[in-house]
Amino acid sequence: MSTAFRWVEQARSGRARAGHLHTAHGTVPTPTFMPVGTVGTVKAMTMDAVRSTGAGIVLGNTYHLMLRPGAERVRALGGLHRFMDWPGPILTDSGGFQVMSLGPLRKLDQDGVTFSSHIDGSKHRLTPERSTDIQHALDATITMCFDECPALPAAPEVIAQSMRMSMRWAARCREAFVQRPGYAQYGIIQGGTEAELRAESVRALTGIGFEGYAIGGLAVGEGQELMFSTLDATTPLIPWDSPRYLMGVGTPDDLLGSVERGVDMFDCVMPTRAGRTARAYTERGTLNLRNARHAVDLRPISPHCDCLACTRHSRAYLHHLFRANEILGPMLLTWHNLAYYQRLMRGIRSAIVEGSLDAHAAWLRAQWAMEDWTPDEMPPPDIPPVP
Amino acid sequence: MSTAFRWVEQARSGRARAGHLHTAHGTVPTPTFMPVGTVGTVKAMTMDAVRSTGAGIVLGNTYHLMLRPGAERVRALGGLHRFMDWPGPILTDSGGFQVMSLGPLRKLDQDGVTFSSHIDGSKHRLTPERSTDIQHALDATITMCFDECPALPAAPEVIAQSMRMSMRWAARCREAFVQRPGYAQYGIIQGGTEAELRAESVRALTGIGFEGYAIGGLAVGEGQELMFSTLDATTPLIPWDSPRYLMGVGTPDDLLGSVERGVDMFDCVMPTRAGRTARAYTERGTLNLRNARHAVDLRPISPHCDCLACTRHSRAYLHHLFRANEILGPMLLTWHNLAYYQRLMRGIRSAIVEGSLDAHAAWLRAQWAMEDWTPDEMPPPDIPPVP
Repeated sequence: MSTAFRWVEQARSGRARAGHLHTAHGTVPTPTFMPVGTVGTVKAMTMDAVRSTGAGIVLGNTYHLMLRPGAERVRALGGLHRFMDWPGPILTDSGGFQVMSLGPLRKLDQDGVTFSSHIDGSKHRLTPERSTDIQHALDATITMCFDECPALPAAPEVIAQSMRMSMRWAARCREAFVQRPGYAQYGIIQGGTEAELRAESVRALTGIGFEGYAIGGLAVGEGQELMFSTLDATTPLIPWDSPRYLMGVGTPDDLLGSVERGVDMFDCVMPTRAGRTARAYTERGTLNLRNARHAVDLRPISPHCDCLACTRHSRAYLHHLFRANEILGPMLLTWHNLAYYQRLMRGIRSAIVEGSLDAHAAWLRAQWAMEDWTPDEMPPPDIPPVP
Repeated sequence: MSTAFRWVEQARSGRARAGHLHTAHGTVPTPTFMPVGTVGTVKAMTMDAVRSTGAGIVLGNTYHLMLRPGAERVRALGGLHRFMDWPGPILTDSGGFQVMSLGPLRKLDQDGVTFSSHIDGSKHRLTPERSTDIQHALDATITMCFDECPALPAAPEVIAQSMRMSMRWAARCREAFVQRPGYAQYGIIQGGTEAELRAESVRALTGIGFEGYAIGGLAVGEGQELMFSTLDATTPLIPWDSPRYLMGVGTPDDLLGSVERGVDMFDCVMPTRAGRTARAYTERGTLNLRNARHAVDLRPISPHCDCLACTRHSRAYLHHLFRANEILGPMLLTWHNLAYYQRLMRGIRSAIVEGSLDAHAAWLRAQWAMEDWTPDEMPPPDIPPVP
């Protein structure tokens, strides 16, 4: 078994691809959704529960982990895999996005960013080199480049200037990256919603050469239409044999449309965050389990789900747990939502492999488009969503 | 298989007893510790996790369940077993203790108690009959009598008056109880720390006749010595072939001493509450995992524990989770603490069966008495605590 990091295409349908991502920590079928494990835990989940949903790779946050418990401490404790009991692949973001979100708490210069911790106000500095070193200390399977991006909308000159600085930083990140078999570093394509700038960014990154390419600076308020048109302009420029990761996206509908546009990897806090706020994803859209109409409903959240919540408990029980502010509510519903996201991705992947993506996508969208659906109407799926 | 409710002695050591509690919902080896599932969930635990610790019976709270989601609603949803996914035996308290704890929010009369909900201030009334009916609606395997007890210390006249009212209520509870094969109702012995009053209470209850007897009104601030002396005066008076349940107790040391005095069943929030506040039970006493000395400690909480926290994670990881206020901290530590309590009870039970209770008790106490122990010094146990 080779431990080289690579993505191998298995099937294609239009621009959508099904493949396998081979890493030092195991192989992941793509397209894949990465649950977010911000500070070394996927919130409210044991790692056994994460595994049971079918997740193949999880995400960790450099910004949060460098502040607590600290990158050197994680290294001393055997790395993030051992720390959080996830021997599979881990992708760590670079901290760039979180630091930019700090607003007045951070100061940007050409060399990097100085910022104050949101936890205790302590001063910290991230540079392309430091971010890369931290991710090495965490033993990230996939290291992300440290980048900078302005909030949208922004003037094209601002976006261009920012993108070009991120490209200079990307070269420094590559310099600092310790190449090892089965490990990877992804460059992050910036350029806002400007097709020309995106193309320039792809050229800069492919000129440096990375194991994979991420599309950053989207899902920041520009709307789905602009996000999709930016993907339309960008993904065809990325080397076809490299994995493509759309950062921080998104809704089930976002995922489907992005896979159709050639994206292989996703992460998003939606399913986990929704799980803590009583919002359940189903084949027919979302349910708010705090709603009184669930109080005496003996049915599971979804008849198509094999998660612990759906196989053992009623909507009424979940409703009760959230009304009573019991920890088990977020535990069960996070589990359910992650199971839904993984089932969605498996369904899309199977459809690509079987050559039926268009039909599957049409079926998914028809389900989502049903208005005023009642749970009674949720039928056995025409196209089984669980392969 | 008979479905009669009964307790059958298997072995005896002094006044300590090992036996089996046969119920409509399964058989439980005794002595047994019942995890507290206040409002239809053992906080921060899935029922699979509760099962994995070896728990055989859990407790639910009438007061909390009648307020939310409501007893009739639980009945409509198939009963508490189905609602919370615990097909095994469930004991429900009567609501008496919680209502008495409300202080100025409740008004006591000879017929019952009127009180205001701590959730929304709504007015409610509990009587012996209503409490018994509610527990029937919940489908409790073991129903407790509705009683009243003053906080200790109190004047003997006050205790006597209160106890006698509880005995009159006990007769009304028995009248209201629907007897079914494999289901039970326990009378609650009151009388504070007055041996004579306890004896009078036992006579009153055995005169009515219950499937089991609970010792109430202890562990309310009187201290271990008075609790043990009260047990010494009380348990010999209880019919030997009935199960005996000491309510709301306690520390590992309390449990051991009470088993030695003839108690078979216990419940207490200590292991679950401690699990949410970073306190870990071990063979050598408790650890506070928020303490900085655990920050880089790669060892498990206990080398003798087979819970998920100990088999997969370091103290450093648990420390990190509590420092970061992550839900997984309470999840893992509640699991660990319940596993410890069940292991403790299995060890005590095995020692009774094997005729080695004195040696086992001496070993347990020697471990607990070690001061300034460091985790390094935790040896392989001389007497294996896990049978």
